[in-house]
Amino acid sequence: MYQQHTVIDGLQYSNWTREYFLMLQASGIHAVHATLVYHEDARATLTRFAEWDARFERNADIIMPIYSVADIAQAKAQGKVGILFGAQNCSPIDDEIGLVSVMRRQGLLIMQLTYNNQSLLATGCYEQNDTGITRFGRQVIREMNRVGMIIDMSHSAERSTLEAIELSERPICISHANPTFAHDALRNKSDTVIKALCAKGGLLGFSLYPFHLPNGSDCRLEDFCSMVARTADMVGVQHLGIGSDLCLNQPTAVLEWMRNGRWSKDMDYGEGSASNAGWPDSLPWFAGKSGMENIYNGLLKTGFSDAEAGQIIGGNWVDFLQQSLTPMTELNQAHNLMPMSADA
Amino acid sequence: MYQQHTVIDGLQYSNWTREYFLMLQASGIHAVHATLVYHEDARATLTRFAEWDARFERNADIIMPIYSVADIAQAKAQGKVGILFGAQNCSPIDDEIGLVSVMRRQGLLIMQLTYNNQSLLATGCYEQNDTGITRFGRQVIREMNRVGMIIDMSHSAERSTLEAIELSERPICISHANPTFAHDALRNKSDTVIKALCAKGGLLGFSLYPFHLPNGSDCRLEDFCSMVARTADMVGVQHLGIGSDLCLNQPTAVLEWMRNGRWSKDMDYGEGSASNAGWPDSLPWFAGKSGMENIYNGLLKTGFSDAEAGQIIGGNWVDFLQQSLTPMTELNQAHNLMPMSADA
Repeated sequence: MYQQHTVIDGLQYSNWTREYFLMLQASGIHAVHATLVYHEDARATLTRFAEWDARFERNADIIMPIYSVADIAQAKAQGKVGILFGAQNCSPIDDEIGLVSVMRRQGLLIMQLTYNNQSLLATGCYEQNDTGITRFGRQVIREMNRVGMIIDMSHSAERSTLEAIELSERPICISHANPTFAHDALRNKSDTVIKALCAKGGLLGFSLYPFHLPNGSDCRLEDFCSMVARTADMVGVQHLGIGSDLCLNQPTAVLEWMRNGRWSKDMDYGEGSASNAGWPDSLPWFAGKSGMENIYNGLLKTGFSDAEAGQIIGGNWVDFLQQSLTPMTELNQAHNLMPMSADA
Repeated sequence: MYQQHTVIDGLQYSNWTREYFLMLQASGIHAVHATLVYHEDARATLTRFAEWDARFERNADIIMPIYSVADIAQAKAQGKVGILFGAQNCSPIDDEIGLVSVMRRQGLLIMQLTYNNQSLLATGCYEQNDTGITRFGRQVIREMNRVGMIIDMSHSAERSTLEAIELSERPICISHANPTFAHDALRNKSDTVIKALCAKGGLLGFSLYPFHLPNGSDCRLEDFCSMVARTADMVGVQHLGIGSDLCLNQPTAVLEWMRNGRWSKDMDYGEGSASNAGWPDSLPWFAGKSGMENIYNGLLKTGFSDAEAGQIIGGNWVDFLQQSLTPMTELNQAHNLMPMSADA
């Protein structure tokens, strides 16, 4: 039964309106990894957090922030949609190692080391030359491990990704990408990467973004589920989740911000092209409120058990977050209450 | 017995070395309200938090951050010195209402609306004209009330202070200042202010900064305790605490930053003067590790009971923090764990 499972979408950047939160709630999703920033620096990241605080205040009846795995259970129990924050780039920490713990305390649970381009930490998947993890990158990986901030290599290049897996003392994730065996794209991941990721306990979230799928917007649910099944055969079902990369109801300006940030004078089309510059058409079986349930049913039809399908649509994300968000230091174990919690 | 009480210094900006933390620990102080910033904007405030994270990491055996009243009890139980953060100016929120909740979640528990000068929120005590709480100031007071961030008017002008007391739905504090009846200085507070503050449940922390005391650095312990006793007669002992304003081992450059920030081309001497530009000499009975115990003993000699003296050296601060740090909204009551706490 779909309703019995904990359902998590491991990556979205939709237009966060009340109407959309109601749709998420109706879809049975208990938590969403929401992209907080693409290219925003530390200061601008604070404004994004502030905007979310306002959303939480206005929509307290249907959404809540997720700072720990316990919060996911609470969201589920209360019938709310939990929001957990991630950054698609390392821009929130500027060039300052000390901002890792600061951003983690603020509620940034996941951070990509790169977004397509070279960053201060690693190389993105669209660069010609992949020089691996930088000096600063090694420091940041160690610090992210220490404070319990999850490393996400979805948009990183192959060598950088393999080095991050190797350097990190804790499992990392690729929150939203597909295997290249299903569709050969710069954003998708080789068997080598997926095997290395999972051998160290990592998690792969399958993307529903048409550019990452065979036949794009015409990809059928059966094709998607076959891709999941083949990956499960390769690395085991316990490492697989969903990271839909859904960007619903966003204007083209947002797509341009994602692709161009402030770095390019020329228009960069990312996975699109000059003749195909806009958002791809949505998958008909993942556009509405039944998307995750459709996947669940598709997985059952492909041969997964109810338990396995439940792990894929959220259970594995819960387990991964459970082991990943605990800080490693005495510092953080010393206080048990969050700053804004009640003492009354 | 001094050792049985919970001892809190309600304001310090000392040079935070390990050596100094050890002295604080030896002095029997369980928590210090540490000034995080004077004039730093939002971005620079993050760096100050990061610097403290590094201090907590390096000195985890003797200090810990305070995010809630429960943390104070934990610090006391573990024999550590708890550090709770405050800003002496509203600079950490820039011009953005949304940064109140962001800074609160980061661990900023107390914020002054002004530091000597006019701010975006209110008028400082050194301005010629006090125009009271601004339009932005009213919004910020309401938001600070909502999230449980304490309003501190130590460096504010009289009208602004009275308006803040009136506008705030929750008790506010004057963390470090003395009554003008004891010493008439721009930084000290009239009977009108002190009575209004305490009538609404507020807290006054007595300052040990020589410029705030009768006879400056020659002020005797008996004079200090008489001032406390006279104030207790006026408003009741339950509203009184200590906020020493101790700035130990700081270079003159820090004093100049406090006084001048980035706002003045001319040197501003604050409570000093061109011929007396440096730090005042410390009070001999408050310079070393026995300072708070000396005050406790002085209070007993002045006629306070052990319980009353205990309230003044920390108990009242605990009670005030207890009622002040609880956020008013469902939003914040919804999650019980702090971002960096363990889920294991």
